[in-house]
This record gives sequence, structure tokens and C-alpha cells, in this order.
Amino acid sequence: MGETWATFGVDLHLDRSGPGLRRGLTDALREAVRSGRLTPGTRLPSSRSLAADLGVARNTVAEAYADLVAEGWLAARQGSGTRVADRTPAAPDRRPAPHRREPGRPTYDLVPGTPELASFPRTRWLRAARRALAAAPDRALGYGDPRGRIELRTALAGYLSRARGVHADPDRIIVCAGFLGGLGMLAELLRRGGACSVAVESYGLPHHRRLLGRAGCDTPPLPFDERGTLPPDGPAAARAVLLAPSHQFPMGLPLLPERRTALIDWARRTGGLILEDDYDGEFRYDRQPVGALQGLDPDRVVYLGTASKSLAPGLRLGWLVLPPSLVEEAMEHMSGRIPGVLDQLTLAEFLASGDYDRHVRAARLRYRRRRDALVAALAERAPDVRVTGIAAGLHAVLQLPPGTEQQVVRAAAWNGLAVHGLSTFRHPEAAVAPLDALVVGYGTPPDHAWAGALDALCRALP
Amino acid sequence: MGETWATFGVDLHLDRSGPGLRRGLTDALREAVRSGRLTPGTRLPSSRSLAADLGVARNTVAEAYADLVAEGWLAARQGSGTRVADRTPAAPDRRPAPHRREPGRPTYDLVPGTPELASFPRTRWLRAARRALAAAPDRALGYGDPRGRIELRTALAGYLSRARGVHADPDRIIVCAGFLGGLGMLAELLRRGGACSVAVESYGLPHHRRLLGRAGCDTPPLPFDERGTLPPDGPAAARAVLLAPSHQFPMGLPLLPERRTALIDWARRTGGLILEDDYDGEFRYDRQPVGALQGLDPDRVVYLGTASKSLAPGLRLGWLVLPPSLVEEAMEHMSGRIPGVLDQLTLAEFLASGDYDRHVRAARLRYRRRRDALVAALAERAPDVRVTGIAAGLHAVLQLPPGTEQQVVRAAAWNGLAVHGLSTFRHPEAAVAPLDALVVGYGTPPDHAWAGALDALCRALP
Repeated sequence: MGETWATFGVDLHLDRSGPGLRRGLTDALREAVRSGRLTPGTRLPSSRSLAADLGVARNTVAEAYADLVAEGWLAARQGSGTRVADRTPAAPDRRPAPHRREPGRPTYDLVPGTPELASFPRTRWLRAARRALAAAPDRALGYGDPRGRIELRTALAGYLSRARGVHADPDRIIVCAGFLGGLGMLAELLRRGGACSVAVESYGLPHHRRLLGRAGCDTPPLPFDERGTLPPDGPAAARAVLLAPSHQFPMGLPLLPERRTALIDWARRTGGLILEDDYDGEFRYDRQPVGALQGLDPDRVVYLGTASKSLAPGLRLGWLVLPPSLVEEAMEHMSGRIPGVLDQLTLAEFLASGDYDRHVRAARLRYRRRRDALVAALAERAPDVRVTGIAAGLHAVLQLPPGTEQQVVRAAAWNGLAVHGLSTFRHPEAAVAPLDALVVGYGTPPDHAWAGALDALCRALP
Repeated sequence: MGETWATFGVDLHLDRSGPGLRRGLTDALREAVRSGRLTPGTRLPSSRSLAADLGVARNTVAEAYADLVAEGWLAARQGSGTRVADRTPAAPDRRPAPHRREPGRPTYDLVPGTPELASFPRTRWLRAARRALAAAPDRALGYGDPRGRIELRTALAGYLSRARGVHADPDRIIVCAGFLGGLGMLAELLRRGGACSVAVESYGLPHHRRLLGRAGCDTPPLPFDERGTLPPDGPAAARAVLLAPSHQFPMGLPLLPERRTALIDWARRTGGLILEDDYDGEFRYDRQPVGALQGLDPDRVVYLGTASKSLAPGLRLGWLVLPPSLVEEAMEHMSGRIPGVLDQLTLAEFLASGDYDRHVRAARLRYRRRRDALVAALAERAPDVRVTGIAAGLHAVLQLPPGTEQQVVRAAAWNGLAVHGLSTFRHPEAAVAPLDALVVGYGTPPDHAWAGALDALCRALP
């Protein structure tokens, strides 16, 4: 739930411009429980987390929780946090009768970030695990190299060089417990020796910022204009920048060549480090993949990849390709962030046998069909909505008329859709004007549910 | 290698009282390469790591490395550190002819910390993986609860309560990437809000201290007398203590009841937290297992367990049982330290099916036979050596005459044994007088090699 809590706030469909934040939040939460969107036993985010996500004071959230505990909708137990109460009050709703339709429990999940889990290749994965374990020497089961198993690092070096244009050799690859294992290690390494600033994009994932913050790094937003993200500016330069150059999340566009050059120039001029988040580089539909930024300057760029989108997030498998000068120090910071050796060996076998390529090709075809259906449906049924960021990845951005985002997110909930507005991903200190848009993840619903999800989405759009 | 680097220093058999540290280190390293103990391509620890392990200045190590690179024994490449050169110089050794026998390449590994890897139940583990994956819902492959899969937390709650006397319920259990994943999370959590001190035992694992240090925690040594470890003392009290009450590592003794009480009293009086490292609680031979300290006060003790000794370190599976008041905050710090869901589900199935208990029982029997053979051989062939810490675990402490430890470690190397002296594990600021002893890990050699290892050990003893 760590990652999904990040986006819990928006699921409440809370209108922050309403009369009194606490009252609005209390009403939204009560409604979510009453309607069944929040089921009995569900653990709510901490008041601190939710307050941060919503950009409100912690007390506002704490008081809303307390009100609902008092009313019996929620239950709080020392230490295990606040949950939806097992039996919710039968007392009549004391609010005035609503003038709008009630959102039901979401039928379709269009929250971006998770691939179609039903297509995880269970049988082939288990077969690869059997072959890998049969071939592994006993010592592979010991503590081993903190960079991970050589079999996987070798397979990754070949794959990343071939498929993503990464300058990789096995000595400079470190296998980590998902993207976040790699980012956490880097944050600890960068913070060593004192305060540290890692600039992030004006739109991005809130839980990346939070992880960096917990590790003691500031996360100022990077400047941003109609041509994309710019390098850090000004005297208080960041020590590193984190960005997704191949497919910006959530905007969905690749970093333009001129901006790539500007970023590399910044890194060379200031000695800064670029952290390249290549979370879904495998999924590009209309032309050749955009090569990794790392290829431009392997001494200035740390490349971070993951199996979370190409296979499944639950594997918690990620990898780093590091500048030579950082490898040794990075190894010392890997303790407690190393994934299990059986998954490592299995992924190595999966890559070496061609199973990985086959799986990615099939998934790419499926996702491309979904995307095409999305574009066609929108052209017909919501011609005023502009779709962007669709050349790659597992999500699209649907640009909305100014000021309508909250309303559309709410309408989507009424139509049984869990979907996020773009504002969910906006850096609280971003210097750009907010944009109204939906971020539609089309990877998650199983294939058979996609037509229904699309229909519900079109009904919610203006 | 992260963990084994910690102990690399002692493998050099470096006599630190010799004429000139740099010269002594250079000679010891050259000899290690020439004799084949360090094989071509082996990566050496960073000069900082080795300097810290040996307690010498970093420059001393850096200069020794530089000398040996110049001589052609080692090779240094920018970024990939220092390695043993592929072809070592054929030039005659310029040192005076040695007056002592040359140690050969170690034949037997008696370094503690790793169980017998050859007995990892590969077939049964794969079968459990197949059953677990067949039963898992698709959503299990997603991001999920940061505490880990409910199947595993439920199975662990039952097992820990039954086998270790831990007060556990699934809500308070967090699955982590090995013991170090849990310790790293706790260090980050404790350091939040500023400086933090985690007291550790006067003898313990250097890489635990290093991990805490990297996370920003001081690690003062706990006082220690002939009756065992004492709670922190004095005005600058620690915020937490880390210790292994069931089977102190490396001393091998359980914490006495009076000391358990004193520790709990300290925690209650000061609001301190006890971090209980129960690394090998499964392996107790002569009587009932010593119950976990956590059972005495689940609100003051964090229990840390691991599959590294009972199954294999490569699984990187560990677990925490937390006081209720810490669960919520701990969940926020788990990002990047969560093990893969397939291993989690497999261990759950392994526990639930009874395979885990069967494996531990069989391993206990094997290790107990080894221990009995060790005790019998020592009684006959080295009657002056006192063996302690043998009621449990996978290692024994062999007490040596004062001042002889380095010499015995060297003699062991001549007999083809990799083994550590007790001084390897001594806290550099420990207030107790150093003791001379060997720490003999009897888990690692495969069964067929144990008799040979024992014979070689006896030959090395005074």
C-alpha cells in the first residue's frame, strides 16, 4: 500500500475549494466508507501522509479521522493506525440529502503504474526458476557479491546495451530491490557528507520525493516549459537530478535532444549527477525506442531500470548502471537492499532464454491495441479532449478544459472508474501553472475488461 | 562480498606489531597473492574499508595497494577498484627467504555466519514455489502492503509464537530484505529527527556497526562483564540497543535472566528500544530453546529474525515484529527494502506445509553431530583449549592462551583453514580487555569435509 497511499488523497475526490477543509474531508471519507469504496478493515494512510498528499495541515486530517471514529465509521487502535470500522453505523446519514449521484465502488482501475498482472508468465517463470536453480552452484545461495549475481549482471549488460543503448558492463551493474531500492541507496550515498539536494521534475511521483526526503535530501522542482524539463538553474544548484528522459511520467513525452544536451552540459559543468529513471523503456509503439540518456555520458548518468512494468512490481527487481567512479561506494551502501538470489537467477535465465523478449513483445502488442482503442474512442466520443503522451508506455494524458479536472475525476468515480487527475503528480513547489488533465493508466485492467473501462471513461469526459 | 569484506583484514594474517605497518601489509598481501590464497581477478576491499577493518590509516592501505600495483601483483582500474592481477609477476620474490612454512589456499572454510549451503532444500523449495504461485491471486504480483504478503505474515505469526515465544500478530510483522533490510529501516526510523545512538555489544559483527554508522547512528559499545552484556549506563544514554540475547554472537552464550530483566528495566525507565537479533534461534541442542526476549515486553522490543541461517542467506528474507506504536512509521520506511513476493509466498507455503520445521530439525541434527565431533576431538587432541558457546548455533569459541590468537590463526591458515580470531569481532572502543580465542563456524563445510576440517583445526591448536 506504500505506493498506493501516495495517491489515496485523490481517490477521496475531495473538493478542496469547498466550505471548510475539515468538513469537506470528513464528508468525503464518510461517503467513501458508506458507498463501499473503502471496505471494512481497510487501513487508512497516516494523518501525516494524507495531509502531505492533500497539501493540508496534519491536524485537519487528524480531526477528520477523530470525527469519523466518534461516529463509528472508522476505528483507531493504538499502533495499528486508523481503519474502516468492521461494522459501520446503521444510523441514518445526518448530512442533507445529496443533490448528485453517489459514486459506487470502482469497477475499473485506471490508476497508472501497474502492468496487467493477469498476464504475468507464471508457468514460464517457474520453468526458468527450475532451470536456474538446477544450474546454480551451492555458493550462489550464500551472501555473495553486493552487486548481485554475475549471471544476472551479465544478462542485463547484454540486454540493456542491445535494447536500450546503455553503456553497460557487468562490473558496473548493481541489482537492487526494485527502483526504490536503487533510489534509496543513491540518496544515502549522495547525502553522505552532509546536506544534499536532488532536483526532481515539476510533475512526478510523490513517493519518489518522499523517499528522497526521508533519506535527508531536498527535492526542489526542476524548471519546465512547453518544450519540457530544463536543467537546474541558479546559484543553489542541485547535486543531482532525477528524471525520466525516455518517457516523462506522467506527461508521457520524451526529453527533446536539445534538452538532453543541456542536461549533460549542466552535469559536466557542475559535476552534477543525472539519475535516469527508465521505468517503461520497453514499451514504445510508433517508432524505434528512444535510447537511454546514459549512452550520451556514462560518467555523468546513473541508469535505473526495473522489471516492475515489464513483468510485475511484486518481483521487486531493479538494476542500476553506475559511472565507474561510483561503483565501489555504491556497493558499500547496498546492505539490506539486495533482492533474493533465486529471483535474480530466474530473471537471468529468463533474459538469456529469450523468454523476456517474447513476453515484452506480446505485452507491447496488447498495450498498443488498448492505446489504439483509447484514441479511437476518444476521437469519436470526446472530440474536445486532446490525448498526449501516447507514443509509449502504459498511460495517456487526457487534456481537459481549464478548471474541470476535479469535476471529471468525480464523474469518473460515479462511472466506476479509479483514475487520477494530473494534479496528483504536481510538485507542491512547481513554478508552472497547474494543468487540468486525467492520467489514464491502461495497463492494469485485464484484457476482457478494457472495452468496459473505455466506455465508462468516455461517459465521464466532457 | 559486502559481508565477507568485513573480515578480509584478518585473512591477511597481518601482524600489526611488526616493523612498519605499510611494509607488513604489503608483504602480507603479496604473499596472499603469490600463494594463491587471493586468486587472479579477486576484487580487494576498498582502501577505506580495509583500513577501517584493520584499524590503520587509509593512506597506509592505499600506499600498500599502489606498491603492489607497481610490482604487478595487483591491477587498479578507474572505478572498478583494485584486483589481483591476471598474470602475476614471474620475477623472483625480492623478500628474504621466509623462515616459516607458507600458508596454502584454504581447503576448509570455518568462518562463521553461513549455514551448509549444499543442504538447501532445492526441490522442496521449488515445489512450494509452484504451489504458492498457483494459489496466489493476480493482485499479489502488484505493489501490495509494505509489510509484505499477508500469507507470510500469518505463517510467521504462528511459527514465531510457537517456536520462539514471540508475541506476534500479522499486523505487527514486517517482512524485510534480510536482517540488514530490517536494521537499515530501523536505523533510518530512529535517526529521523536528528542524531541517534544505537548501543551495540562489545563483541559483534563489524558490518552491523557500519550499516548503523552509514545511516547516521553512533554505535557505542555496551558494558560487558563475566556475566554478560549490561544495559547502557551513564548520562549519554543510547536511544536503542542492538543485541542477540538468545545466543550472543560471537560469544555464543544466552543473556542471563537477571540481565534480561535489567535490560527491560532500562528500556522502560528511559523509553529506550531493544533491537533483538535472533539470528539462529532455531538451533539449540541440549535443552529447550531460550525464548525470545521480546516475549517479556513486546512494547519495548523489536524482534528481528531471518531465514539466512535456517535456509540460506541468498534468499535475503528477514522479518521484524514491532511494538504497535512503531508499525505505522516503519511501513513508511520500508520502500526499497521489501523482498520479492514470490519468495515471500514460497516461504509462507514452506512454513504452512511443515517443510520448514522438517528442514530445521534435520539441519539441527547434522549440526549437533558436528558439534559433538568438535568437542570430542578437542578433548582428545587439544585438552588445553576450552570450548564455550556450544549449546546452540553454528559456531563455537575456542579459548586460547593469552597472546596466542594471531599465531593460531596463522597456523590454521598453514593448515588450509579459513578461520577468524575473536579480535575480528571486537568493538574498537570496547572497554574490556581483549580475549584470545578462535571463532569456529561449523555450519559451512559440506558434511563430507567436516572430518578433514576438524583434523586440520586440531593440528593448528596449541
